[in-house]
Amino acid sequence: MINESYKQMLTQKSVIRELSEYATARGKEIGYENVYDYSLGNPSVPTTQHYTDTVIRMYREEDPMTIHGYSPSLGIETVREAVAQSLNRRFGMNYEGKHIFMASGAAGALAHAFRAVTKPEDEIIVFAPFFPEYREYIRRTGAKMVVVPPKTDDFQIDFDAFNAALNEKTMAVLINTPNNPSGVAYNTQTIEKLSAMLSQKQQEFGHDIFLISDEPYREIIFEGADAPYPARFYDNTITCYSFSKSLSLPGERIGYVAINPKCTDADILAVMMGQISRGIGHNCPSSTAQLAVMQCLDETSDLSVYETNMNLLYDALTDMGFEVVKPAGTFYIFPKALEKDAVAFCQKAKAYDLILVPADNFGCPGYFRMAYCIDTEKVKRSIPVFKKFVTEEYGKQ
Amino acid sequence: MINESYKQMLTQKSVIRELSEYATARGKEIGYENVYDYSLGNPSVPTTQHYTDTVIRMYREEDPMTIHGYSPSLGIETVREAVAQSLNRRFGMNYEGKHIFMASGAAGALAHAFRAVTKPEDEIIVFAPFFPEYREYIRRTGAKMVVVPPKTDDFQIDFDAFNAALNEKTMAVLINTPNNPSGVAYNTQTIEKLSAMLSQKQQEFGHDIFLISDEPYREIIFEGADAPYPARFYDNTITCYSFSKSLSLPGERIGYVAINPKCTDADILAVMMGQISRGIGHNCPSSTAQLAVMQCLDETSDLSVYETNMNLLYDALTDMGFEVVKPAGTFYIFPKALEKDAVAFCQKAKAYDLILVPADNFGCPGYFRMAYCIDTEKVKRSIPVFKKFVTEEYGKQ
Repeated sequence: MINESYKQMLTQKSVIRELSEYATARGKEIGYENVYDYSLGNPSVPTTQHYTDTVIRMYREEDPMTIHGYSPSLGIETVREAVAQSLNRRFGMNYEGKHIFMASGAAGALAHAFRAVTKPEDEIIVFAPFFPEYREYIRRTGAKMVVVPPKTDDFQIDFDAFNAALNEKTMAVLINTPNNPSGVAYNTQTIEKLSAMLSQKQQEFGHDIFLISDEPYREIIFEGADAPYPARFYDNTITCYSFSKSLSLPGERIGYVAINPKCTDADILAVMMGQISRGIGHNCPSSTAQLAVMQCLDETSDLSVYETNMNLLYDALTDMGFEVVKPAGTFYIFPKALEKDAVAFCQKAKAYDLILVPADNFGCPGYFRMAYCIDTEKVKRSIPVFKKFVTEEYGKQ
Repeated sequence: MINESYKQMLTQKSVIRELSEYATARGKEIGYENVYDYSLGNPSVPTTQHYTDTVIRMYREEDPMTIHGYSPSLGIETVREAVAQSLNRRFGMNYEGKHIFMASGAAGALAHAFRAVTKPEDEIIVFAPFFPEYREYIRRTGAKMVVVPPKTDDFQIDFDAFNAALNEKTMAVLINTPNNPSGVAYNTQTIEKLSAMLSQKQQEFGHDIFLISDEPYREIIFEGADAPYPARFYDNTITCYSFSKSLSLPGERIGYVAINPKCTDADILAVMMGQISRGIGHNCPSSTAQLAVMQCLDETSDLSVYETNMNLLYDALTDMGFEVVKPAGTFYIFPKALEKDAVAFCQKAKAYDLILVPADNFGCPGYFRMAYCIDTEKVKRSIPVFKKFVTEEYGKQ
């Protein structure tokens, strides 16, 4: 018999995907250039010429048996070593190759990190607002996701609420900085306080609590932002990374897990992830993608458009009277809706061909997300439309 | 706390991998050309020039945003449609795009197929000899693997034993034809009888029994072999495929699941697999690999070396007095060892720098596997060494 638990999931469509499909369909009616589609977090800038050239050179010059050969299940050793060295250079860490596990994007990285440090019935704490897929990622490991409510004045951490959520069953804490959907990065003060509280609770409970830091937006950081590297502050940190955003390679499914060398069992965690991968059909990212990103570790696509777009939108939204925290990075902004029901708010915006995502699924009702990984020219054109919308629907000037 | 169940797996090293590592180390001592390394099932022929040219052209000419964009979680629609059409042309099937789920190799395909049609505590029947990783693939779904003992005279199916293994809890039956490690393909008679027995048991138990057919070696079929396409014979067939062997692309991690259009819930199974992928961090194969294999669906690498090697080894082994069934495909041959303990037999062979894999882990003690995906010249040089080994150790002439 087919598995009913998966069958039932078929009715739970992703809100983001539904809106994105609507935007595409609407684009076919009125021209996609007239749909202000802020639904999907898809990079809008190409990968680097260097990445493209590297792959072409590899295909032309190198032995197909080598570049298309099986990768060891933990990743190609030279690639793991190069990732470690790049992180050490950039963040003053002491990773070795053995601390790196190559994964098929951040989703693959998280799947392994969760399984390595929790067992079914353990609790994993997540801070709202959060990427809705975390629910599925965690649920299928058998662990329980515990949500700390959002601190909406600045989207840092509500430490009283966090303290209340921590208990003997807490085995991992998941953070995502800079954050999807808020665009906010945890500042030094937040990370220090988080680290101190986790250290104290480890003492109190007499067991490790792992900090799983999901960082696909790490390279998209705006001017003046205080966005420290969490693993520098807390020994039991497992960092999950993806090249999807930094090198605009979402379709290549490549990322990694980096285990802090000071983490408990640091020397065996990557090997354990190799064992985990056998049970979930993972088998590491493409060998050619591994070899190609190895050549591009210290570079990114031209990500400047995201900051340009953020500034345009932040100023416009503030002008229009929205409550909104200025993003420190990512390509998201996260204003408070003009009515309590953000679903209704976004539904009304749709009539203006403004595609906004209500944040109920992100654990933050009353807010909405705009993914501004789109052309700047379209952002500019969307602003008068946005103004028309809020004037007509909410009487804003 | 780290998950003890994975930690304990660290001591269970793969026999194949250990032997392969030994062969590599030994090669550093005496020159790898002097190590007759039959351990690993790694393709020994390059991918096609057409595949290489396709990727280069794509990287040079196409929009990086398109080729590196997110693939839908079920796979790129045009690729799914093209896979369906290729299977229809070749096997007289009626697949549509909606019946194809793109997966990261056969391991990814199996991970989804198992989860889609079983739930924890269900039973999945596997026939010995079998690929040892099946144990891990199945165990981590929570289902129970039930092994049907081998029929060593021809490595077809022992139907009495199969009948005895089937019960109300049987939700899926896994076959692998042509087979790793025996090299044997199930013939028409076997598939017909298997299909009839499954149909009868479905009636008897009042529920579906799914046939999961793992076919990474489908294109490596030798002259005169009777190796039919199982899905033609049984409606509830879910076919798992990988391009690792046919196009020599093991490192690209690309394959698919093909759901027989006549299968129960055929129209939703691929969508269910999309849901499953959310929980295990799968997120489909690389977009560029999908787009590239789409252009190469009806071609293969030059696979003729495998048949050449098989014939050399089959004749030599038969000459030396081994009991061995002639392979119909793959790049494996599976003789009976010259003593009851195949581990001891392979251990003795190691002294001659012959690297053979004992089949205890394949569910078939007393046999050993040779992976002859190596240069023909080396196969030829290995034969006198093999003769010396069996003469000196077992008194064979």
